[in-house]
Amino acid sequence: MNNQYVIGVDFGTDSVRALLVDAHTGQALGTHVHEYARWKQGLYCNPGQSQFRQHPLDYLEGLEATINGALANATPGVRQQVVGISIDTTGSTPGPVDETGQLLALRPDFAENPNGMFILWKDHTANAEAGEINNLAHHWDTDYTKYVGGIYSSEWFWAKMLKTLRVDEAVRQHAFSWVEHCDWMSAVLTGNTNPLTLRRSRCAAGHKALWHSDFNGLPSDEFLTRLDPLLSGQRNRLFTDTYTSDQPMGHLSTEWAEKLGLSTNVVVGVGAFDAHMGAVGAEIEPYAFVRIIGTSTCDILMAPNEEIGHRLIRGICGQVDGSVAPGMLGLEAGQSAFGDLYAWFAHLVTGPVRDLMGDEAADRLSRQLIPHLSQQAEQLHLTENDLIALDWINGRRTPDANHTLKAAISGLNLGTDAATVFKALVEATAFGSRSIVDRFVQEGVPIRKVIAIGGVAKKSPFVMQTLADVLNKPIQVAKSDQACALGAAMFASVAAGVHPTLEAAQQAMGSGFDAEYQPRPERVAIYETLYQKYLTLGEFIQNNGAASSPISTQYAESETV
Amino acid sequence: MNNQYVIGVDFGTDSVRALLVDAHTGQALGTHVHEYARWKQGLYCNPGQSQFRQHPLDYLEGLEATINGALANATPGVRQQVVGISIDTTGSTPGPVDETGQLLALRPDFAENPNGMFILWKDHTANAEAGEINNLAHHWDTDYTKYVGGIYSSEWFWAKMLKTLRVDEAVRQHAFSWVEHCDWMSAVLTGNTNPLTLRRSRCAAGHKALWHSDFNGLPSDEFLTRLDPLLSGQRNRLFTDTYTSDQPMGHLSTEWAEKLGLSTNVVVGVGAFDAHMGAVGAEIEPYAFVRIIGTSTCDILMAPNEEIGHRLIRGICGQVDGSVAPGMLGLEAGQSAFGDLYAWFAHLVTGPVRDLMGDEAADRLSRQLIPHLSQQAEQLHLTENDLIALDWINGRRTPDANHTLKAAISGLNLGTDAATVFKALVEATAFGSRSIVDRFVQEGVPIRKVIAIGGVAKKSPFVMQTLADVLNKPIQVAKSDQACALGAAMFASVAAGVHPTLEAAQQAMGSGFDAEYQPRPERVAIYETLYQKYLTLGEFIQNNGAASSPISTQYAESETV
Repeated sequence: MNNQYVIGVDFGTDSVRALLVDAHTGQALGTHVHEYARWKQGLYCNPGQSQFRQHPLDYLEGLEATINGALANATPGVRQQVVGISIDTTGSTPGPVDETGQLLALRPDFAENPNGMFILWKDHTANAEAGEINNLAHHWDTDYTKYVGGIYSSEWFWAKMLKTLRVDEAVRQHAFSWVEHCDWMSAVLTGNTNPLTLRRSRCAAGHKALWHSDFNGLPSDEFLTRLDPLLSGQRNRLFTDTYTSDQPMGHLSTEWAEKLGLSTNVVVGVGAFDAHMGAVGAEIEPYAFVRIIGTSTCDILMAPNEEIGHRLIRGICGQVDGSVAPGMLGLEAGQSAFGDLYAWFAHLVTGPVRDLMGDEAADRLSRQLIPHLSQQAEQLHLTENDLIALDWINGRRTPDANHTLKAAISGLNLGTDAATVFKALVEATAFGSRSIVDRFVQEGVPIRKVIAIGGVAKKSPFVMQTLADVLNKPIQVAKSDQACALGAAMFASVAAGVHPTLEAAQQAMGSGFDAEYQPRPERVAIYETLYQKYLTLGEFIQNNGAASSPISTQYAESETV
Repeated sequence: MNNQYVIGVDFGTDSVRALLVDAHTGQALGTHVHEYARWKQGLYCNPGQSQFRQHPLDYLEGLEATINGALANATPGVRQQVVGISIDTTGSTPGPVDETGQLLALRPDFAENPNGMFILWKDHTANAEAGEINNLAHHWDTDYTKYVGGIYSSEWFWAKMLKTLRVDEAVRQHAFSWVEHCDWMSAVLTGNTNPLTLRRSRCAAGHKALWHSDFNGLPSDEFLTRLDPLLSGQRNRLFTDTYTSDQPMGHLSTEWAEKLGLSTNVVVGVGAFDAHMGAVGAEIEPYAFVRIIGTSTCDILMAPNEEIGHRLIRGICGQVDGSVAPGMLGLEAGQSAFGDLYAWFAHLVTGPVRDLMGDEAADRLSRQLIPHLSQQAEQLHLTENDLIALDWINGRRTPDANHTLKAAISGLNLGTDAATVFKALVEATAFGSRSIVDRFVQEGVPIRKVIAIGGVAKKSPFVMQTLADVLNKPIQVAKSDQACALGAAMFASVAAGVHPTLEAAQQAMGSGFDAEYQPRPERVAIYETLYQKYLTLGEFIQNNGAASSPISTQYAESETV
């Protein structure tokens, strides 16, 4: 058997990474990271208004640079044996295209117009439109939000599309259709970007565009027209069918084959979102709960369709057949803030230092602070009377999305120092995790193992041990620190026919785990008591004015690792 | 009319201060401060066990040094025209005496025994005894705690006396009786320290020793014996009568007249606690609420006996006929933490800086931090959706003492910085103040004006303005920064017959006010809403496990300015 190689490309918020992998052994042969040049300069964004746009040229330049970079040290033989490329991206990150599938921003007349670019997942300019979608859906015959946890987000496809059509007449005139970032990148590689025929990702469509087989695809034209006549007829220029990422999108175009020094036989797989491909890269299996733990968490669980079927899982962000692996229901959950809660506290402490002692001192403190507090917090005695904090510093994504919620800290006394507060915040993020796990279990979806990837999982043994104690479950940390790109490579290997199934690809290419945290029984019991107090405090904050205040959705709903 | 001068002596926690005042004009002619030498070295204390003792020699040396110091620049004529001396002290700060009224620690066999010394107000070694007193009192025919708000504190007379008798056989054998610091100092000046005949302070006895005319004095021997047979017979070696501080204790003894270069005609007044004499120095009047605002607050209100009489004021620390001024019911309340809440937050922020950047950097930050945060917090927009914090970082003294309560902060989001938290903490202390004011009003005791003294009142315009806005009442800040010593001097002038009444003394000697804060109507309405949220959060924390945890009484129940 000849060697066969695949390439996974992972588009993140700030940069894109490509990974060249041996499709039979999983061995990584080359990798390359490219930062988006325009994005880095802050172009087309207005953070004060939560407007975040990315120019398609940033993506195209990154696509070429990273694949070539990953191949830079490969022998000519290896180049000839590349058989597949798959791509994951952030999302929902949609953009308007013309009849040819060209992003409007690639036309001279739209080159500098942010509304002709990709609207990044964390752009919140469509808050009002999301509210309208929710209102209408909740009063429609079919509640189109039922498979996305009952709440449509301003970060998602329809809200962003509607907002843009409302505010920009030029886009209204020239946008024939709309595409998700992950679909467009893959289509570009094949040379066919025709919006009517390119293969749309099940993952993106199901989680963000309200696509479901129960609805015969997207929401009805009647619904969309009622939402706004501007949406009338759009459904027909979008899509009805969607594809799981084990499917091929097509083959590499001549143009791109030349650019990359690869053959036109290379299969390009259907794209998907980063967290979903990351879960595959981290060796997700049925009823494994894969948590991508960074500033926030994105949690992916999958279960055989025949066991869960169309049963609604209450209060979970999304459930989409095939969004992770074909034949499996992909369930998505997440915490709006995880590492961000610790970063918030670090900022609280370093802020006055910055004001009074300058940037140099503040930066120095900032670098040392969280490791130092972790070290101190680890030494603290655990009791049933410890502080209780809520982790809703950026609202709550799951269970039961509510972006108006805020965080709280109780149980403070004169002896409470920074390490004690930090310990409570770490526990709060773990309790938030526990409430998601409990919800799955209550809804009849058992969780058989917990796998973690992402920056916090890799860097914070104290946090991970606390999480294991609170969940009362062992947690395995995936060895790969490029789980998303590795997952994309696994999909590429299946789309290219190297492996018959995704499971086989995982078995051949998986890189395993490098740490496992076991719950400590003496702590489990104490955390059980503290968790009940967390729930009680949370119920109070949820029901009372002290917490209800203007919506804060900054960074909420991130798919991004 | 000849000139007449009086001296007020104010014994604080760390130092004693004497103030020489013209009894007719209130003009200060001299002042002197003396720090306790043994105390400064940390002798006889064990902070880890909350054991805080003060040696009577520290007091005696301070008494002589400060009065001589205040007189140092006085002409011989002035010395001859000193007519009165009165003393205030911290309390409850009791100590054991022999038959002659000598503090045991002044005898060679007790010279180094902490149990033969004064037990400082903040000593908490008698927590268990306070619990026993509460249990028994609440089940006795007469609830002896009813005039002290229903909860006897470990900081008070009986608990400390009982604890000491239990743990120290030598004290059991040689302690004939017990005295409060304020009584003993005054007695020492007169040369008569006989515990059976020295005039006991109504203020100390009523607020701390459960003395009340309804009880015919102290609790019954039956009650005390049931508490512990060690207390059997003690009542007869203590006192039945008590005296208001407008009364003379006696005249200066020959010995002390010589030490101080004063005449034996000098009248020594009956002593009292610092906050009560401080309220007089700050020109308290009926239904004026005088707040001594420092690390904690001690709040004093007085009302004519004929208007309030023996009516119980629910949940207020103490109510004692004549504890402030004769003929007036003295009502005491207070917050366990005020400036301490800000200091706690400053410590939270500077703690990691101390660990990681050293003492010099931390001390520098510490000096600038609260003024800096005040300046920033003052600029913040006030809304009905702001953070809500509880001020119970050291439990709650009033209303409804509960030392197990803890503080909390709610409404945190990613934008919450240190200044925002600081603003919430300042508001929390103001809300705590409001709940005391409201309780007085609900119980039929109107509050006609608010007067503030103490470090925070003098140094923090931002805090005082917030307090005025939250209370919706103007607040006057007394000009004197030695209000306690000035109040003691006023009492001395009445005891010596210079003025017929305390009111007359206040009129002649008062130094007025130097700042007045007016409530800002646009903020009053918003604070009304936020205060309701404070109450709701407080009710939750009080009723729920998240807050109930081991008793923390450190610094609670301080009388000290």
